[in-house]
Amino acid sequence: MASSLSRPIAIIAGAGPGTGASIARRFAQAYPVVLLARSSSSLDPLVRGINQNGGSALGLPTDVTNLDNMNSAMTQIQKHFGADLTVAAAIFNVASKFSRAPFLDAGTEFLDSLEATACGASNFSKAVIPFMLADKGTDTPDHGGRPPTLIFTGATAALKGGPGLGSFAMSKFAVRALAQSLAREFGPRGLHVAHAIIDGIIATEKTKDFNQDVPDSKIDPNWIAESYWFLHNQPRSAFTHELDLRPYCESW
Amino acid sequence: MASSLSRPIAIIAGAGPGTGASIARRFAQAYPVVLLARSSSSLDPLVRGINQNGGSALGLPTDVTNLDNMNSAMTQIQKHFGADLTVAAAIFNVASKFSRAPFLDAGTEFLDSLEATACGASNFSKAVIPFMLADKGTDTPDHGGRPPTLIFTGATAALKGGPGLGSFAMSKFAVRALAQSLAREFGPRGLHVAHAIIDGIIATEKTKDFNQDVPDSKIDPNWIAESYWFLHNQPRSAFTHELDLRPYCESW
Amino acid sequence: MASSLSRPIAIIAGAGPGTGASIARRFAQAYPVVLLARSSSSLDPLVRGINQNGGSALGLPTDVTNLDNMNSAMTQIQKHFGADLTVAAAIFNVASKFSRAPFLDAGTEFLDSLEATACGASNFSKAVIPFMLADKGTDTPDHGGRPPTLIFTGATAALKGGPGLGSFAMSKFAVRALAQSLAREFGPRGLHVAHAIIDGIIATEKTKDFNQDVPDSKIDPNWIAESYWFLHNQPRSAFTHELDLRPYCESW
Amino acid sequence: MASSLSRPIAIIAGAGPGTGASIARRFAQAYPVVLLARSSSSLDPLVRGINQNGGSALGLPTDVTNLDNMNSAMTQIQKHFGADLTVAAAIFNVASKFSRAPFLDAGTEFLDSLEATACGASNFSKAVIPFMLADKGTDTPDHGGRPPTLIFTGATAALKGGPGLGSFAMSKFAVRALAQSLAREFGPRGLHVAHAIIDGIIATEKTKDFNQDVPDSKIDPNWIAESYWFLHNQPRSAFTHELDLRPYCESW
Repeated sequence: MASSLSRPIAIIAGAGPGTGASIARRFAQAYPVVLLARSSSSLDPLVRGINQNGGSALGLPTDVTNLDNMNSAMTQIQKHFGADLTVAAAIFNVASKFSRAPFLDAGTEFLDSLEATACGASNFSKAVIPFMLADKGTDTPDHGGRPPTLIFTGATAALKGGPGLGSFAMSKFAVRALAQSLAREFGPRGLHVAHAIIDGIIATEKTKDFNQDVPDSKIDPNWIAESYWFLHNQPRSAFTHELDLRPYCESW
Repeated sequence: MASSLSRPIAIIAGAGPGTGASIARRFAQAYPVVLLARSSSSLDPLVRGINQNGGSALGLPTDVTNLDNMNSAMTQIQKHFGADLTVAAAIFNVASKFSRAPFLDAGTEFLDSLEATACGASNFSKAVIPFMLADKGTDTPDHGGRPPTLIFTGATAALKGGPGLGSFAMSKFAVRALAQSLAREFGPRGLHVAHAIIDGIIATEKTKDFNQDVPDSKIDPNWIAESYWFLHNQPRSAFTHELDLRPYCESW
Repeated sequence: MASSLSRPIAIIAGAGPGTGASIARRFAQAYPVVLLARSSSSLDPLVRGINQNGGSALGLPTDVTNLDNMNSAMTQIQKHFGADLTVAAAIFNVASKFSRAPFLDAGTEFLDSLEATACGASNFSKAVIPFMLADKGTDTPDHGGRPPTLIFTGATAALKGGPGLGSFAMSKFAVRALAQSLAREFGPRGLHVAHAIIDGIIATEKTKDFNQDVPDSKIDPNWIAESYWFLHNQPRSAFTHELDLRPYCESW
Repeated sequence: MASSLSRPIAIIAGAGPGTGASIARRFAQAYPVVLLARSSSSLDPLVRGINQNGGSALGLPTDVTNLDNMNSAMTQIQKHFGADLTVAAAIFNVASKFSRAPFLDAGTEFLDSLEATACGASNFSKAVIPFMLADKGTDTPDHGGRPPTLIFTGATAALKGGPGLGSFAMSKFAVRALAQSLAREFGPRGLHVAHAIIDGIIATEKTKDFNQDVPDSKIDPNWIAESYWFLHNQPRSAFTHELDLRPYCESW
């Protein structure tokens, strides 16, 4: 894979349909992308689509919440792109199932979301950061002046708990804590770590029947992708560490 | 244990030396207290002290981060106080060891604190709340007009991540998310759920050599206890859901 | 007034009926209180009531938003208590009228609330702090170990703006900014500055017809007073800088 | 001015050297820009530069903190562009002098910043919003699909007070309160209101000697402009209401 050595790549975890796919396609306009998702069924059409449209995508079915799985994905990535690969952008967009049951009715699955999201975010960060720091930020011509960027997809529940939302809020608060901690630890070394608060329903196949009477009331996933791309373009003199994204009609 | 039936109790998890001991002694002025801590070595002198001073304390060595352990503690508590016991106050004060290592150097212990604190907080809440709701708040004469109260000890890291603090911040953010979610779910049923942000060094045996040159620069654990007691005394028309506690000289 | 010299006093601005009156009566249990309010009609019965119940109250009709007015009140206070008077507690509880009109319909009165509350808070702080720092905190036996305390009454709108709430939110945000700045400037000198977020309807004569079907759904003003008294009692090793107060049934 | 009728304009208040000039030049790539600043000395070279580079700029020396002044500027703008002009973007970037004196030493100038910034922000918003709502957001082809956007430049002191920062923080908190209130009032009508937290030293002529040893440690004003332009480009399904901008090496 020597030919790939000179080009930095982007890695997207949670590259399922919807937001993950939009992010993948956006970053594929600039980088070869590696897409991680639990099942190959959601990866395959996305990978095919990108490759057919002039991009370069590699899909690796991976459970990032499992450390061995995540590490084995990194091994495959290195085999594919070379051991000295550079990661220009890494996006943690893993959605977790969470229990909405009343607290006292929830079983042990109450903590599954925390396990999945928080551990996944930690595993993913630990795997990719070493390949991002090799990147020298604005000194690296290959990046077009773009510092390496690690972005976490968050939600309203990253800022505020709610009845029946304990499971989800614990996981989203924890990921935000990780994002802030990594931003403060690695920012001075030129790594841009950002957290995005997605506050609203995302317009996907699954939600197509929601809110049909209010135009534009669901977040366009392509604009989540565009916002992440914007974050990646910020020079190190002007990093945004947190931004919110919500439809104009959302109450907040 | 029929004689205990009429009296509500207080349960303190993390009743080791320091803050936990102060809280235990404060609530023991009003209630029989059940004290949970990992090791009996820290429980025994505290239990003895309370019982010798006219209070009533039961110490149960318990690892609240382990669901079976927590449940077996509740079984013992019910055996002791009767199956229809009432919990007037429950305090989650479990301190977790956390890694301060640079993120990339930390091993799997990075997530131990999250596991311990977040799972512990969830296990504890699930175990005690059913015995608190039985309590009818201001209608229950035994409580002296005090609504049942569930308090979580938090830290600065519940609000802000930091370099080398990812492990700790993830756990503290998650506990705050749980506290907010429970407050919003059970508040309307009269349960007072509060989160305290302890921002500063606590004056304990372990910290006695710190900051000796600045008087009162360490938080008096008896005043953490006094503040929790104040929270417990608030009627349901005026609940405080979050308060901070820090020394006058702390920068924040 | 030489006889008063040895006793610290409390000053309450915004000592009208409702919360102000409750605060005045609570602090009058420990200190002679000076009560400031725009009109003597609301001051007179309160002052009379306190004096008849064994307390000592001095009412001074004062517009604290007017610097000359505030200064002249301080001159009168010094005449009464002696130039070397000590202020143990100062409470800024001034309610401001604010426009709830749609933003584009509001006239110049849109900024009146900001003017009144923010300037009032600044005038009041500047007038009282010099008499609080003279107080040596825990060294002053007259205070019973209570550090001097300056408390600002805030509202939900101190944390969050809203449609039609610009006028009110601007003033409440600004007062919170002042409270934080003073806490950080004077905390290290032993002055306790705190901000209280009153989030809900306060049970007063004016609101007696609201929410009658939900018991305890309005904040008991005596418990606002009790919470302020609690803040005043905190030693300098454990200052609370912000607390919220809301009914159990309030959604937040 | 019939020829101008069909083109929406941008208005920048606080269009002095530095950030204001960068914003003006960025928005002048898409719109005729109206530039407001206190003195014509800072406006003139900027206006000349934009006009010489293919843009169209109109400079109006205006004190936006004075309502009559602001209104008279709007009258001139209408004379120039026609009474039915459309404002696509309005940026409030007014910097205010503020006192950093210790609180007790500050004179009446303590409140000048609040007066200037908060009143200015309110005057400006009231003047421009009526010309923004006329704009039908994504239905207006002239805007290239860009909803009308009102942006306020904020600072770290919008989130946190500090010793000697009361004057500045009060004004910045108040502007943030206004931004949030307007966003919630006018968002549902398609107006995008955003608040930017500029956290760090901006690289300008005035600051050129600061931090010279740390590369890129000052915020590039062109990237503040670029970020504002990005906000303006967001469709109404994905509005960002607040973002922060700080150098990678800034501690926060």
